[in-house]
Amino acid sequence: MGRFARPRTRIAVTHAISPLAPKTHPAMPPIAGVRLATAEAGIRYKGRTDVLLCLLDEGTEVAGVFTRSRCPSAPVDWCRERLAGGRARALVVNSGNANAFTGLKGREAVALTAEIAADEAGCPAETVFLASTGVIGEPLDGSKFRGVLAACAARATPDGWLDAARAIMTTDTFPKVATRRVRLGEVEVTINGMAKGAGMIAPDMATMLSFCFTDAPIAAPVLQELLSAGAATSFNCVTVDGDTSTSDTLLLFATGRAGGARIERADDPRLAAFRDALDDLLRDLAQLVAKDGEGARKFVTVEVVGAETDRSAHRIAMSIANSPLVKTAIAGEDANWGRVVMAVGKAGEPADRDRLSIAFGGIRVAHQGARDPDYDEAAATAAMQGDDVTVSVDLGLGQGRARVWTCDLTKAYVEINGDYRS
Amino acid sequence: MGRFARPRTRIAVTHAISPLAPKTHPAMPPIAGVRLATAEAGIRYKGRTDVLLCLLDEGTEVAGVFTRSRCPSAPVDWCRERLAGGRARALVVNSGNANAFTGLKGREAVALTAEIAADEAGCPAETVFLASTGVIGEPLDGSKFRGVLAACAARATPDGWLDAARAIMTTDTFPKVATRRVRLGEVEVTINGMAKGAGMIAPDMATMLSFCFTDAPIAAPVLQELLSAGAATSFNCVTVDGDTSTSDTLLLFATGRAGGARIERADDPRLAAFRDALDDLLRDLAQLVAKDGEGARKFVTVEVVGAETDRSAHRIAMSIANSPLVKTAIAGEDANWGRVVMAVGKAGEPADRDRLSIAFGGIRVAHQGARDPDYDEAAATAAMQGDDVTVSVDLGLGQGRARVWTCDLTKAYVEINGDYRS
Repeated sequence: MGRFARPRTRIAVTHAISPLAPKTHPAMPPIAGVRLATAEAGIRYKGRTDVLLCLLDEGTEVAGVFTRSRCPSAPVDWCRERLAGGRARALVVNSGNANAFTGLKGREAVALTAEIAADEAGCPAETVFLASTGVIGEPLDGSKFRGVLAACAARATPDGWLDAARAIMTTDTFPKVATRRVRLGEVEVTINGMAKGAGMIAPDMATMLSFCFTDAPIAAPVLQELLSAGAATSFNCVTVDGDTSTSDTLLLFATGRAGGARIERADDPRLAAFRDALDDLLRDLAQLVAKDGEGARKFVTVEVVGAETDRSAHRIAMSIANSPLVKTAIAGEDANWGRVVMAVGKAGEPADRDRLSIAFGGIRVAHQGARDPDYDEAAATAAMQGDDVTVSVDLGLGQGRARVWTCDLTKAYVEINGDYRS
Repeated sequence: MGRFARPRTRIAVTHAISPLAPKTHPAMPPIAGVRLATAEAGIRYKGRTDVLLCLLDEGTEVAGVFTRSRCPSAPVDWCRERLAGGRARALVVNSGNANAFTGLKGREAVALTAEIAADEAGCPAETVFLASTGVIGEPLDGSKFRGVLAACAARATPDGWLDAARAIMTTDTFPKVATRRVRLGEVEVTINGMAKGAGMIAPDMATMLSFCFTDAPIAAPVLQELLSAGAATSFNCVTVDGDTSTSDTLLLFATGRAGGARIERADDPRLAAFRDALDDLLRDLAQLVAKDGEGARKFVTVEVVGAETDRSAHRIAMSIANSPLVKTAIAGEDANWGRVVMAVGKAGEPADRDRLSIAFGGIRVAHQGARDPDYDEAAATAAMQGDDVTVSVDLGLGQGRARVWTCDLTKAYVEINGDYRS
């Protein structure tokens, strides 16, 4: 190869559906006050939808959780600023271009897109929420949305949730949806959610987007409290490669159209079942993201107990879940607890080698700082051979516990992210 | 494959020599007061040396830097405790078994090994230093060293540095040595160093070991200050996969046999050239470790300037160097600055998207929060095609700077660490 590069053609490789994909998708009921439509705007992809418009009835309240990146995308900045109002009338999501690291042009594109959507939804631009996923650093032409969003608004319907989940995919191999039905005071309410996970087309990066909708009558500040708490035990417990996107966005919209009294306090006892259902739905979506991690062949649950605090347990669990050596060992179906010891040790959290116990799939392999004398290698290896692998660590120090999810690290991950040259 | 595992044979795969290996090794001069010998103890490997004994003349002073793992190996515990004395008469290193997570048995094995070495060297066991690298969690039989160390002591010579560097390898693909000659006050002194890097045989993990020797007359507390400072800009600036070993050990021995006045203060002006030479030698060894990173095909330098502090710059540089998405992009020879933005953003350090500039091999690709308008993709891609790739980030905030080294992430890394099943 010469000193200068050949011009390259970037090829979007279609990857086989993850072996961890669910066999079926749940039937998604409508949510009163929410209408959806998708379109092919040709932002980057050909022959597939890449725009989602959600129209939300007047009175819809909203909560959001965003990336902690110090270099967030333009849509993340926009949503953060608009969240204070607590009101939402439209959501526009595009795939193919993340509108991240696009400077002033990116901010202008976001404002223009919101204006176009506001025209179609008949609402102030301040109540339009936006999310983008795809290439970083490429300018996004906001004017592209003009005709597209008009057409979407004209044919938006309460159905088509799976189509919506497909439109926001990048190289996700399957659409991710979940639904729950739960009692809230005197009424039954529905929660629908969709997510996209680790997708990659050069030079994109994985972005986690999730949008949840309910007809429950819940005030925005309460919604925010529920969502922040729910994110802490769901999306914030998932890692594919430890690389945090500039665009991570989780939004929850509540139309209130189920009727019943508006819930205005987070300690309202009527919220108990709703909170559980929301947490459960968020966990479900988060796990689907790990199951579609790039190159994933195994879904991995890491459980840590006996830590000094829950926070400490979480950090240790994430250190294990992010360790390339642990993840490659799991890909190799090896009950390699030496690497788990390493990952516990490097987390920087209180740990005592001589109290540490480690199990794979319930088979204890190490106990009190040494190999378990009853360690049965065949049983431990068998525990590594299914699609689901659980790594359990007992630190033996206190009551802190945490559970996080990840996937294994396979050659396909490197292929997807490194071998995209023509 | 059935429910239960087949019994496995673990095969130590020999990997091709890293394409980043130096073409030649430096000629290693003797160090007055240091004698070396290696042996085949058959601890795990067959047909290769796996034990190194270094005998040190009376009066040798020692300094050390160790893993920050909360689950350190038994030899690390031993060395840390013995370091306070500041005196060393022998160093015993074995490969094949890390004696980590081996509980009480591990501590007993260390004590026994030190006793055997002390007998042979005619010194107190307190002045014997030990390091082990290899399998974690397997008991190490200290009695194996008895005959082996006696034989080593009988034939120890001032030569054979390359053999010594070979005996401490695990799956390193080349021995790592460096030497410097420098003036210290009225005398010329020599510094020799060896290191081993990322090696892996199931279920081993990468361990960084490095041993340096000088005939300079330097008091242990001064030596410690020099070594700690040197480690901060060398070994602590290298990462292959972000996984910190339980066994990382860097020791520096000074025999004082070059003669001249003993240096007893770290601010002694005579130290200036020695300090530079030591820093340079440590950097050299650290870079050799990155060049032999598992599966490495490219040596990567990450430079960060314009951060608020040096510490902040270091954290951002490590976030870039540890990012799987950055490392796979480099393997793919893609000047993917979007992933560098991501890695800056996730570091959690002060950063302002709109002031950020990024260059590959000196070709600026992003400037002030957006793609550089003069960005020449062909030139940037060309900068990715050599063996050496430099990623430069200017945060535009302050004077903080850092430089770290790593390698790319290739399918071979996953192969080495995940595909070791029979």
